[in-house]
Amino acid sequence: MTGQNPVFIPGPTNIPDRLRFALSGQTEDHRSPDFVGILAPVLSDLKKVFKTTSGTIITFPASGTGGWEAAVTNTLSPGDKVLAARHGMFSHRWIDLCQRHGLDVEIIECEWGEGAPADLIGQRLAADTRKEIKAVLVTHNETATGVVSDVGAVRRAMDDAAHPAMLYVDAVSSLASMDFRMDEWGVDLAVSGSQKGFMLPTGMAIVGVSRKAMEAVADAQCPRCFFDFRDMAGANAKGGFPYTPPVQLIQGLRKSLDMLLEEGLENVFARHARIAEGVRRAVDAWGLQVCAKEPRLYSDTVTAVLVPAGFNSDTLTNHAYDAYDVSFGVGLGQMAGKAFRIGHLGSLTEVMALSGLATLEMAMKDLDYPIKLGSGVAAAQEYYRSTKSAALSKAA
Amino acid sequence: MTGQNPVFIPGPTNIPDRLRFALSGQTEDHRSPDFVGILAPVLSDLKKVFKTTSGTIITFPASGTGGWEAAVTNTLSPGDKVLAARHGMFSHRWIDLCQRHGLDVEIIECEWGEGAPADLIGQRLAADTRKEIKAVLVTHNETATGVVSDVGAVRRAMDDAAHPAMLYVDAVSSLASMDFRMDEWGVDLAVSGSQKGFMLPTGMAIVGVSRKAMEAVADAQCPRCFFDFRDMAGANAKGGFPYTPPVQLIQGLRKSLDMLLEEGLENVFARHARIAEGVRRAVDAWGLQVCAKEPRLYSDTVTAVLVPAGFNSDTLTNHAYDAYDVSFGVGLGQMAGKAFRIGHLGSLTEVMALSGLATLEMAMKDLDYPIKLGSGVAAAQEYYRSTKSAALSKAA
Amino acid sequence: MTGQNPVFIPGPTNIPDRLRFALSGQTEDHRSPDFVGILAPVLSDLKKVFKTTSGTIITFPASGTGGWEAAVTNTLSPGDKVLAARHGMFSHRWIDLCQRHGLDVEIIECEWGEGAPADLIGQRLAADTRKEIKAVLVTHNETATGVVSDVGAVRRAMDDAAHPAMLYVDAVSSLASMDFRMDEWGVDLAVSGSQKGFMLPTGMAIVGVSRKAMEAVADAQCPRCFFDFRDMAGANAKGGFPYTPPVQLIQGLRKSLDMLLEEGLENVFARHARIAEGVRRAVDAWGLQVCAKEPRLYSDTVTAVLVPAGFNSDTLTNHAYDAYDVSFGVGLGQMAGKAFRIGHLGSLTEVMALSGLATLEMAMKDLDYPIKLGSGVAAAQEYYRSTKSAALSKAA
Amino acid sequence: MTGQNPVFIPGPTNIPDRLRFALSGQTEDHRSPDFVGILAPVLSDLKKVFKTTSGTIITFPASGTGGWEAAVTNTLSPGDKVLAARHGMFSHRWIDLCQRHGLDVEIIECEWGEGAPADLIGQRLAADTRKEIKAVLVTHNETATGVVSDVGAVRRAMDDAAHPAMLYVDAVSSLASMDFRMDEWGVDLAVSGSQKGFMLPTGMAIVGVSRKAMEAVADAQCPRCFFDFRDMAGANAKGGFPYTPPVQLIQGLRKSLDMLLEEGLENVFARHARIAEGVRRAVDAWGLQVCAKEPRLYSDTVTAVLVPAGFNSDTLTNHAYDAYDVSFGVGLGQMAGKAFRIGHLGSLTEVMALSGLATLEMAMKDLDYPIKLGSGVAAAQEYYRSTKSAALSKAA
Repeated sequence: MTGQNPVFIPGPTNIPDRLRFALSGQTEDHRSPDFVGILAPVLSDLKKVFKTTSGTIITFPASGTGGWEAAVTNTLSPGDKVLAARHGMFSHRWIDLCQRHGLDVEIIECEWGEGAPADLIGQRLAADTRKEIKAVLVTHNETATGVVSDVGAVRRAMDDAAHPAMLYVDAVSSLASMDFRMDEWGVDLAVSGSQKGFMLPTGMAIVGVSRKAMEAVADAQCPRCFFDFRDMAGANAKGGFPYTPPVQLIQGLRKSLDMLLEEGLENVFARHARIAEGVRRAVDAWGLQVCAKEPRLYSDTVTAVLVPAGFNSDTLTNHAYDAYDVSFGVGLGQMAGKAFRIGHLGSLTEVMALSGLATLEMAMKDLDYPIKLGSGVAAAQEYYRSTKSAALSKAA
Repeated sequence: MTGQNPVFIPGPTNIPDRLRFALSGQTEDHRSPDFVGILAPVLSDLKKVFKTTSGTIITFPASGTGGWEAAVTNTLSPGDKVLAARHGMFSHRWIDLCQRHGLDVEIIECEWGEGAPADLIGQRLAADTRKEIKAVLVTHNETATGVVSDVGAVRRAMDDAAHPAMLYVDAVSSLASMDFRMDEWGVDLAVSGSQKGFMLPTGMAIVGVSRKAMEAVADAQCPRCFFDFRDMAGANAKGGFPYTPPVQLIQGLRKSLDMLLEEGLENVFARHARIAEGVRRAVDAWGLQVCAKEPRLYSDTVTAVLVPAGFNSDTLTNHAYDAYDVSFGVGLGQMAGKAFRIGHLGSLTEVMALSGLATLEMAMKDLDYPIKLGSGVAAAQEYYRSTKSAALSKAA
Repeated sequence: MTGQNPVFIPGPTNIPDRLRFALSGQTEDHRSPDFVGILAPVLSDLKKVFKTTSGTIITFPASGTGGWEAAVTNTLSPGDKVLAARHGMFSHRWIDLCQRHGLDVEIIECEWGEGAPADLIGQRLAADTRKEIKAVLVTHNETATGVVSDVGAVRRAMDDAAHPAMLYVDAVSSLASMDFRMDEWGVDLAVSGSQKGFMLPTGMAIVGVSRKAMEAVADAQCPRCFFDFRDMAGANAKGGFPYTPPVQLIQGLRKSLDMLLEEGLENVFARHARIAEGVRRAVDAWGLQVCAKEPRLYSDTVTAVLVPAGFNSDTLTNHAYDAYDVSFGVGLGQMAGKAFRIGHLGSLTEVMALSGLATLEMAMKDLDYPIKLGSGVAAAQEYYRSTKSAALSKAA
Repeated sequence: MTGQNPVFIPGPTNIPDRLRFALSGQTEDHRSPDFVGILAPVLSDLKKVFKTTSGTIITFPASGTGGWEAAVTNTLSPGDKVLAARHGMFSHRWIDLCQRHGLDVEIIECEWGEGAPADLIGQRLAADTRKEIKAVLVTHNETATGVVSDVGAVRRAMDDAAHPAMLYVDAVSSLASMDFRMDEWGVDLAVSGSQKGFMLPTGMAIVGVSRKAMEAVADAQCPRCFFDFRDMAGANAKGGFPYTPPVQLIQGLRKSLDMLLEEGLENVFARHARIAEGVRRAVDAWGLQVCAKEPRLYSDTVTAVLVPAGFNSDTLTNHAYDAYDVSFGVGLGQMAGKAFRIGHLGSLTEVMALSGLATLEMAMKDLDYPIKLGSGVAAAQEYYRSTKSAALSKAA
């Protein structure tokens, strides 16, 4: 791997130079007044990205999985019942994590390619007359299938059922790339990480915590220490961490927030949507299908593409890497061998996206896929050029 | 803070350029063959630093505290009795972590400035005829007091008591800077991190696990998922992580290991010892005392210096920062206000150390400490120049 | 300009990270033994790139134009007659430089798009029975037209005429990307720079000097000081420069040579040829023509593409920049408005090249060029994929 | 050389991270609107540093020596008489450069350690009744001896003699570190470079040109092309260069100007003066003498220290490098073996300066100089601490 070509994995993303420089910053004293002065505005600006004013942002030096663990262990107790839909690898893993922490997970099994079923969730909650369900778990963007779930619809279903369960959302691969509205959607725990929309390396779990969730902390009986919200929130309030913070990542997050807010969140979302749509048009021009069942489910950060019968998607991603030095996402879980994934989030331009599409065409042709070279590229080009004036005028 | 002067906090350390470049590396696919090819040698070379051949190295994207949590939750069960000495802030925090995970911690209270008392540990173990104590916790280098404990002596005491408890060692601020012998000392769980001897930012917990400890994993009942040894060891065996790995930190660790092994571990230790001794001679020339009670307890990575009666060490460290833009470690816990700490680990030269000593002299003089300018510097200079030929010949 | 997309100007090229790190290196003492130890091997390895064993390499902290000035002023005297072909902007500028230094330039005017005419040069030399012509100037790769000249043929013509004139070659945009054979072709002065095949920023003129040329230095009457070969060669022999050297660029050159020699010069040339041919196939698929008159003149580092009548190439390059954030070379001199240039030298992959071609297609379509989206991309894809196995087997 | 310790050579200086990042910037198109937009403000802000409103700033991709050559060849003709004082290595080299370009240099020989003699210059000019002297050459800061000359006094002497000669000043190692007043002092040609007060690598000659000097360009007969003011000024006016510009250095200069102007030029000068005075107090405490004959001649960017009889300064600088990995300036020309030089310009703090002084003390003691360890450090410490409040209040 030469590092010359962009990556098209669904995170970590390509990293802008401005962030790379921050990541290579020399050590500064994390107990110094200067560093202390950085943390509060970072947490405050993160609220803008979560679209919350009443919530609290808590970060940990960990991956997104650590964020899940923090969300669950700080607000629930062993034996608590939680309701979760399983429709992809990441919703599956989250369920597994809950089970290992002693939670009683009621699973709604969905077809991979579907989103979280707001209607079914509503039915279960309505049936839970004893209000035993403490939490509803939703994966906003299922990275394995390229499916975005309608979190607002889940919230409405919860409200319709007048159920007091809290709403937990995995926003790891959506936050800062697709619209996320913590307050409006009544999300109680929103989990994300540094390596997706924030365009940084893995290393920071970022969790949005509602007031209700924060109140639940006192009663939660799951043991925790490293991930304890109270320690972190208490130390943050004094400008610090309960242990050594990842200073460079926090400085990187500062720069990342600068970039996102300078561009404007809505422009960031529009950019992702535009690049994603070009990719989908290419897929369509190839005569292939995406994993997501319906257009309303299409993710703007990752597209999972089903390979034709008789082909193995792992062969394709391996070949693209070996022959052209370009990384795409492999199929995970049920999709192993059946789908490859094109990550199109974070630091990306339509020009970079076209190089990924062109590479896939060559790789598919090499493997005798019934593909016409240039066909997907042309479809994406047409979309990009016909929509660019809007992009230009917005940028101006 | 301009970033021009070195930091003298006891970690994170000053970062060499070679590592800073690795940390700013562009994203590479963590599932690619190239990345997979990097992980195994990193883990293998880490064994050399732990001085273990039979143990397993497990890393997590977390701080050293996460390493503690991993060590404890993977090998113990709620209610298990563990024996720990408390003689500083970090031994104290570890005890707290154990208690939060439901362990029954038997605490040997020691004066701060003392090391872990091998004799008392031996006595307790001998008295534990029912072998209820599952683990002995030792902080190899207590960063709050600048005290190094004799882990080998603890092991001998354990063996003398013929007690089967496992030996857990916090080697966060000693590993890769001071001699650590996992196998020889019979350490079962050795916890370290990226931000000390490895000269990297915070972000990776590094744990050495003995065969005996690995066997204990199956029976351990503490809930864990993010920090589960089995998931990590299993994924590592295939060249990956159970979740997204911190690619740049792992590449940084690769370069860090290259640097340590190129210099030679024993040379690294000798360099730390030499710089530390110069610092201690300066302290002595100032007429001040270190926190460590005896020379055999002196740490080679951090020196905690007691301020004279009537002075407040926080005022000194704040002044050094405000007036001279240099960071030193503050006094922690019982030592708050009573001691300041000079970190002298990781990427440091005697020339850099002298600039720290010179800064302290100016800051102390400014605050009317009874200090003669140049006195400590001169003592350190004399030591450094009289020992440099050995350093030179070793380098040659 | 976001810096995310590759540039397609014919130099400076995209810079590999390995070189970017070297360029950001901290200051080191240029009079230190360590730096002195670096210079000699750099000069020695440069000889391999020039393919000379008997020549001397002399570098200056300047651009390629400075290299021309050095070549001319160190070996010629005011009033000396030199013979030069003018067939592009860079051959034109070189002639201008000679005239400003008082040389009597006999110019062979050629059509832009032609190479240096070995036959006409031979005729002029044959006619110069008094041997007044002191030098023949050839632009190996005319960057303005994308034309490579046959230097070996010029040498043969000179030999056939049994003329003692020296052969001066501008190899700025060919060296380290296309085959260059200083000794075999009997080149006396070969001028290059850091910002093309060496993939570095502008800042170092690199000149190959034959023994014969070096002997001419003593008699050359053109005044010079900054560019004096004698000062530089003398200081180089002691490991230094006659003034402060550009340390980071020299360290960058060290890394660049490492990269070139690790890949193998012939592989480097083959890579450039393959990428260039894909670009030319795209141009052909678009129904456009290149500036170079014949295939034997095609440059492997830059392709100048003639726009159809009625179109202005500046409008195209401006639009590509404004709308898609991608830089291409503008038409220069006679080609202003008539041709755009695609730089495909230095650090580039076929995947990056495809993104440039895709961008051009969108930009041309936007401006109503009679272009079919995807057509050029497909032609290049087909070429790249059908030739990749050779590339792969060579890389293996 | 590990790169951990600061350098104390009198340029290139230690480079701040902010500039190092700019230097490693990816290639951007030098003909693009964005780059074009950068050049004009850089040139405009450079005027502030030269303290000129009526002059023009012209830069070249070259070293300071290239700047000399540009100044001379653009404004003078072979045979022109120029008057120059020789009192150090750099004034000597400038004279040599003039002679090589055919100028008739009338030399005032001064003792090394003296400045340019305004009185003698005035006498010569007064005696030049035929006004044959076209230029007076003054080295503002003689880097070889650490002597600053009074340029304003030279201007007054010129005015008193009512002589029309132009005033040429070498400000390479003074500009942006010590006060320089191009307009007030009536300087016609002021030559500097990127690697001193601008804290960048070597690679850019920076020349201030008065209106009078610019008018002289038309008549100047020295041949030049690479360094032609007309080409550069003409291209600059359109936002470009007549050849490929050193993009990263220009971006670095942008950041350097930002840093200098943010700190405030007068604060920059005060910082240099304060650090320099501490160094001189150390030298005095050692019982050694500086090369500069009088306090009014003391340079604030470099101090040349005479070694006691019987000692060789080269041995000292070599030993400091070999034993302690710290670079100091060697004695040049007449001072070879007799003086070492401490560079204290550019990116430097008093803390860094103290580490250099401490190193020199160790090195001198090792070589049996009659030096008391800590003595110079203490003198500098006392000065730094007693003057820091002013520095702090200024910074506030």
